[in-house]
Amino acid sequence: MSQKVVLAFSGGLDTSFCVKYLSEDKGMEVHSVLVDTGGFSDEELKAIEDRAYSLGVKSHATIAKTDDYYQQCLKYLVYGNVLKNNTYPLCVSAERIFQALAAAEYARKIGASAIAHGSTGAGNDQVRFDMAFRIIIPEAEIITPIRDLRLSREAEIEYLKSKGVDQEWHKAAYSINKGLWGTSVGGRETLTSDQFLPESAWPTQVTKTEPETITLTFDQGELKGIAGSTVGEQSFENPVDAIRKLTEIAGPFGVGRDIHVGDTIIGIKGRVGFEAPAPLIILKAHHTLEKHVLTKWQLYWKDQLANWYGTMLHEGQFIDPVMRNIETFLTDTQTHVSGKVHVLLAPYRFQVLGIESPYDLMSSAFGSYGEMNNAWTGDDVRGFSKVMSNQVMIYEKIAEHNR
Amino acid sequence: MSQKVVLAFSGGLDTSFCVKYLSEDKGMEVHSVLVDTGGFSDEELKAIEDRAYSLGVKSHATIAKTDDYYQQCLKYLVYGNVLKNNTYPLCVSAERIFQALAAAEYARKIGASAIAHGSTGAGNDQVRFDMAFRIIIPEAEIITPIRDLRLSREAEIEYLKSKGVDQEWHKAAYSINKGLWGTSVGGRETLTSDQFLPESAWPTQVTKTEPETITLTFDQGELKGIAGSTVGEQSFENPVDAIRKLTEIAGPFGVGRDIHVGDTIIGIKGRVGFEAPAPLIILKAHHTLEKHVLTKWQLYWKDQLANWYGTMLHEGQFIDPVMRNIETFLTDTQTHVSGKVHVLLAPYRFQVLGIESPYDLMSSAFGSYGEMNNAWTGDDVRGFSKVMSNQVMIYEKIAEHNR
Amino acid sequence: MSQKVVLAFSGGLDTSFCVKYLSEDKGMEVHSVLVDTGGFSDEELKAIEDRAYSLGVKSHATIAKTDDYYQQCLKYLVYGNVLKNNTYPLCVSAERIFQALAAAEYARKIGASAIAHGSTGAGNDQVRFDMAFRIIIPEAEIITPIRDLRLSREAEIEYLKSKGVDQEWHKAAYSINKGLWGTSVGGRETLTSDQFLPESAWPTQVTKTEPETITLTFDQGELKGIAGSTVGEQSFENPVDAIRKLTEIAGPFGVGRDIHVGDTIIGIKGRVGFEAPAPLIILKAHHTLEKHVLTKWQLYWKDQLANWYGTMLHEGQFIDPVMRNIETFLTDTQTHVSGKVHVLLAPYRFQVLGIESPYDLMSSAFGSYGEMNNAWTGDDVRGFSKVMSNQVMIYEKIAEHNR
Amino acid sequence: MSQKVVLAFSGGLDTSFCVKYLSEDKGMEVHSVLVDTGGFSDEELKAIEDRAYSLGVKSHATIAKTDDYYQQCLKYLVYGNVLKNNTYPLCVSAERIFQALAAAEYARKIGASAIAHGSTGAGNDQVRFDMAFRIIIPEAEIITPIRDLRLSREAEIEYLKSKGVDQEWHKAAYSINKGLWGTSVGGRETLTSDQFLPESAWPTQVTKTEPETITLTFDQGELKGIAGSTVGEQSFENPVDAIRKLTEIAGPFGVGRDIHVGDTIIGIKGRVGFEAPAPLIILKAHHTLEKHVLTKWQLYWKDQLANWYGTMLHEGQFIDPVMRNIETFLTDTQTHVSGKVHVLLAPYRFQVLGIESPYDLMSSAFGSYGEMNNAWTGDDVRGFSKVMSNQVMIYEKIAEHNR
Repeated sequence: MSQKVVLAFSGGLDTSFCVKYLSEDKGMEVHSVLVDTGGFSDEELKAIEDRAYSLGVKSHATIAKTDDYYQQCLKYLVYGNVLKNNTYPLCVSAERIFQALAAAEYARKIGASAIAHGSTGAGNDQVRFDMAFRIIIPEAEIITPIRDLRLSREAEIEYLKSKGVDQEWHKAAYSINKGLWGTSVGGRETLTSDQFLPESAWPTQVTKTEPETITLTFDQGELKGIAGSTVGEQSFENPVDAIRKLTEIAGPFGVGRDIHVGDTIIGIKGRVGFEAPAPLIILKAHHTLEKHVLTKWQLYWKDQLANWYGTMLHEGQFIDPVMRNIETFLTDTQTHVSGKVHVLLAPYRFQVLGIESPYDLMSSAFGSYGEMNNAWTGDDVRGFSKVMSNQVMIYEKIAEHNR
Repeated sequence: MSQKVVLAFSGGLDTSFCVKYLSEDKGMEVHSVLVDTGGFSDEELKAIEDRAYSLGVKSHATIAKTDDYYQQCLKYLVYGNVLKNNTYPLCVSAERIFQALAAAEYARKIGASAIAHGSTGAGNDQVRFDMAFRIIIPEAEIITPIRDLRLSREAEIEYLKSKGVDQEWHKAAYSINKGLWGTSVGGRETLTSDQFLPESAWPTQVTKTEPETITLTFDQGELKGIAGSTVGEQSFENPVDAIRKLTEIAGPFGVGRDIHVGDTIIGIKGRVGFEAPAPLIILKAHHTLEKHVLTKWQLYWKDQLANWYGTMLHEGQFIDPVMRNIETFLTDTQTHVSGKVHVLLAPYRFQVLGIESPYDLMSSAFGSYGEMNNAWTGDDVRGFSKVMSNQVMIYEKIAEHNR
Repeated sequence: MSQKVVLAFSGGLDTSFCVKYLSEDKGMEVHSVLVDTGGFSDEELKAIEDRAYSLGVKSHATIAKTDDYYQQCLKYLVYGNVLKNNTYPLCVSAERIFQALAAAEYARKIGASAIAHGSTGAGNDQVRFDMAFRIIIPEAEIITPIRDLRLSREAEIEYLKSKGVDQEWHKAAYSINKGLWGTSVGGRETLTSDQFLPESAWPTQVTKTEPETITLTFDQGELKGIAGSTVGEQSFENPVDAIRKLTEIAGPFGVGRDIHVGDTIIGIKGRVGFEAPAPLIILKAHHTLEKHVLTKWQLYWKDQLANWYGTMLHEGQFIDPVMRNIETFLTDTQTHVSGKVHVLLAPYRFQVLGIESPYDLMSSAFGSYGEMNNAWTGDDVRGFSKVMSNQVMIYEKIAEHNR
Repeated sequence: MSQKVVLAFSGGLDTSFCVKYLSEDKGMEVHSVLVDTGGFSDEELKAIEDRAYSLGVKSHATIAKTDDYYQQCLKYLVYGNVLKNNTYPLCVSAERIFQALAAAEYARKIGASAIAHGSTGAGNDQVRFDMAFRIIIPEAEIITPIRDLRLSREAEIEYLKSKGVDQEWHKAAYSINKGLWGTSVGGRETLTSDQFLPESAWPTQVTKTEPETITLTFDQGELKGIAGSTVGEQSFENPVDAIRKLTEIAGPFGVGRDIHVGDTIIGIKGRVGFEAPAPLIILKAHHTLEKHVLTKWQLYWKDQLANWYGTMLHEGQFIDPVMRNIETFLTDTQTHVSGKVHVLLAPYRFQVLGIESPYDLMSSAFGSYGEMNNAWTGDDVRGFSKVMSNQVMIYEKIAEHNR
């Protein structure tokens, strides 16, 4: 009986090669799986499934993971205002992890003894797949044909042709990875340090020119409503839908675009363009709301833990139990993070205008800046300043004495 | 003989009141001092001096501290990419500290037995003055007439009139604090949480509409050159001049504007508008350069220490020796932070386009992304992933076993 | 009608003075309260109550808070292995906070319009009381006769005598604060930097000379059992009882003694002796267990948060919501912290000998050090080392090239 | 011409095997090197050299690195009070790194094209050697015969016998690694979680039974003097000599013994016994001194950075430039860390008794605890407490209002 292998399949050249290679050269029973974390339309999913069967897989499974992806990961990126190196919303990294985990769980469920991915040996994704596979299904062999064989694109096409798969493999000028939490864009310019992406490279072109104002409603840290002149007022049971709607509204303004250079898991620096209108707006709006409703030290420690969470997520260490501990912390900080945030959208930029929240610590219901002053006097502050100076005053006196 | 008091004098209503009050009601010998950290023109300095003498001070001193302010403080804000709560460049806070320190040192130098400031009991500045005074010149009495007497604006004007100072005290719609590192703007809208400042409130109006590209040159972390289509190529011995030039170039685009809500030293939330075109551009450009030339852990620890540095600076704890230790650390990280950063300026926004540096860790001189791959194989990464998974793999096995 | 004041009452000279002063000089209706966090015997509680009534309080309440104190505070000090500056188990600080909070809640419950404490103006406790009172019952006036009047001990005794309270006020050579989580000891030596406390100053004298071995059982981070040659095997529903038992067993060995010098809330350095046998043993045992069952990053982040938790607790900032967030985090880390820890007790020292836990990541059930090695090869580690070196290797090459 | 290989040589079975294997089976020109970081006597060094030549090396070099090891590494462990997981002074880890670096630099100097170490595939040392070799001399091939061939001890002995090396290879019950900064002890018990090392396993036996008091003198963080009843008063130009002297004095008390369980670089938990009398005493004494002379935030940030420094050092990441930045920070914190620390030595334990320092912030020269109080009043502290409560008081009011 042939060995059962689960292959994380995207329908592209590399994973198409893997199907043929694993089934025909290796004589394995290939079960392809596509994990949908929100980046595919129904038509695309169907087309990928058709291709899988046409290449000869024994079975193909489409696993819908968008809600899990939000509930088990994106939600915490919002709670934590996570931008890697203060720039990158982790569009691709987070998704890849979830795809790897779901593929591994699927392999375990159907009793596969091997599991394969089509990543090359040059990037982050291989590590994310490797680690998720090894932790979730350690007894399975991990097979990585593209990485191991180091074939050129041409050689892969040639091989597939020899197996009767003779189709046009379009090589786009820019490599695009579209997901719920943003789209990454790589190309000639991102291989250098000094070039920016040209206007034409961005997947979403700028078609809105008139500024709009929208209001985002957060409930305990989650985006649950959007209102605006052009959109009316909408509530969302599922924040996934709110993210999609916001992408639709803000995308045509060309906001949330940037290029990030960062540390890859394998130690080299990598540069990637991205357009992530919804994440960038949500994170800035959410953070502004938090600055109004959380205490100074809540803000401080949230930053510490969330920054770390983002790094470990990026580096494929999502399964470490410390990540669950951090999620618990972040969730616990969100009880007061409810309210409205007003945002201006304009071509290539957005601006948070202000917030309203029943938990606003600036709330005039309990005294405005002036009135609150009744709660303490200038003398109180004088005493405060005096006591606050004690240690350094003594330090300076002693330092001077010893000079 | 009357008691010698040094008064931090700005020429405004509050400190004018203080001159009269201290000299006439208290019978003190008032020595006014204005510390210039870069926010005043020569004409303004002269006018303030004239006013001081006309109010009856025994002496008035103008202390030029702009270079010290940059060398002892702003420089580190650049090294550390310091934005309070990821938003606010600490325009006012840093300056006030320096003014307080210089005033205290001056009082010490001239042998004053008292030192006065004109802050009210409602904000951060009183604490900054109090603490600097107490640490630098602990034996001096600290006198704070405005805070202690809690007079209304009208009462102060009345008092001055009674002393023969009968002038127009213009109350602007927006309170503006202009400095080298940005200008703060407060007004009706910043007292609420939900309003943004109107276009007319911003000190620098948007007069440039055509995008421009400029190139900033950093030398070991410091801005030393600016080049651009409209500006030619300029080198600056003194980064203070570069900051001024960049403000002049970028200001009319209306970039670097925002409203920050933050934790005041006295525990309440405060909201402040600011326009800080040069700081925002410099910090983002410098940070991008650093992402190319520093290691992952240098970036991580710089963030930790710089964030803390910003908070302590903001809260008037600049004199704590830990601040000197952090400055030493930050300086030590800048040896490779040299190169050019290309920036696009457009109305209301700017975009870092890319960088060039001999220290770029992405440098193709040592192998591009593809070639560098020759330094390790897919097998190496497989081994890496395996070893990286060990702990969590064992953890999961044991967790499962105990379920 | 006279004003109702709640007084935190200990039965000592200072708070006895307060009763008379508040009731007779101020004409207030004094309701004394003693909050028991585990440091008093029933006899002591009765004696304090009697004294309160004899001094003329309108009512006296004894509030039993030991279990709350453990459940809401001590538990987290164990989860977090909290030793201030790696030395001091926060014996007194934690207790004082709980006493202050309970007194404030009591004042609120009985509708008092004022609340009083007997702390002087020289230490930490005044701040803890002030802050708890102000946050829990902000509308109440805070009265602090000892701090405000700055009376000498003799003057207080004289005053009480004049009010008919003529008793012996014994001034011990050492000031002792006994609580569930340890006993603090202050005296002549702790006012200097160079002296240690003499043997006779320690409340618990060393009476055991023969080493004993005990085994502590932890269940999800909490001490639930003690076994040993001299004690048999005991389970405890309530960890409070386990702490008491361990104190009884280990105390006569003189372990857990030290002197801590630390930063007081008011900025000066303070030195305090303590004997805390149970805390020191529990924390070291618990930490050792954790080193076996938690991942590297769980250990790291627990340390960060717990250290901060200890500092804020010490400084009276227990009510900040970030403390609840940290508690949630710490609790979430304890699911695997179960097992036995073997400890050697000997005069003046103890030694953790080893642990047993079903969650031990060293467990041979899943391969011993040697066998586990089957899970990866030397080649895997070679690849790991290679990839781990990448960034710094590139950094060094580029640095060399630029030299 | 045969290939030139540098071999890190210890004279033990594994590296003796390597000499024969590299020279005879591989036909390489073997240049053995022993890096002395303070763990060898002159006799031992000579014996190792003799053995190297007798095995047939082309050359053997002994590199004296003890002073460099102290100056470039141990010094910072003292400045930072570094104990891994609050337990382990990194005796072996630090040394191994230095040996690896020196071997790599030597290989570079003599123009070797290969470099070899004798570590197995099971521990930390292989990674330390691999990383140092790859970063310092990236063009050299790294050869690891023991790891690659996976031979048993018996097979190695057999092989050597077949090559004419027929000697007794003594296998000790405990594997001992002696160095300047402590000695590690591994054996049967450390392979389990629950056993402690027996008395006989410790390299230094307890021969002193009468307590002694010694005084350590620190100069800007470095140990420069020791005085005591049995030792007289001694100054040391070189702290290395002071460390040796302290080891000699304290070792026979059996202090500084413990077992640490920690995270190895390769993800598994490892347990190791150690006796490190000098490090444990120096670190505790130094820390106590620092608690007297540094500000609260200096202590806090030193801990953060030093803890990280220890972890990266342990994991072979000593060459990362962030380590140099941290060293700069730590050095900058030591300017006031001068003074005397009194320590009691007794069998199996030591106790820091107190300190004396001109920089002591508790110094009575500037007012004792009581007098210093003149610098502020009870009212000042009342104001301080009030302002410190502001944020949480407002938070609680708003929380209550929304309930």
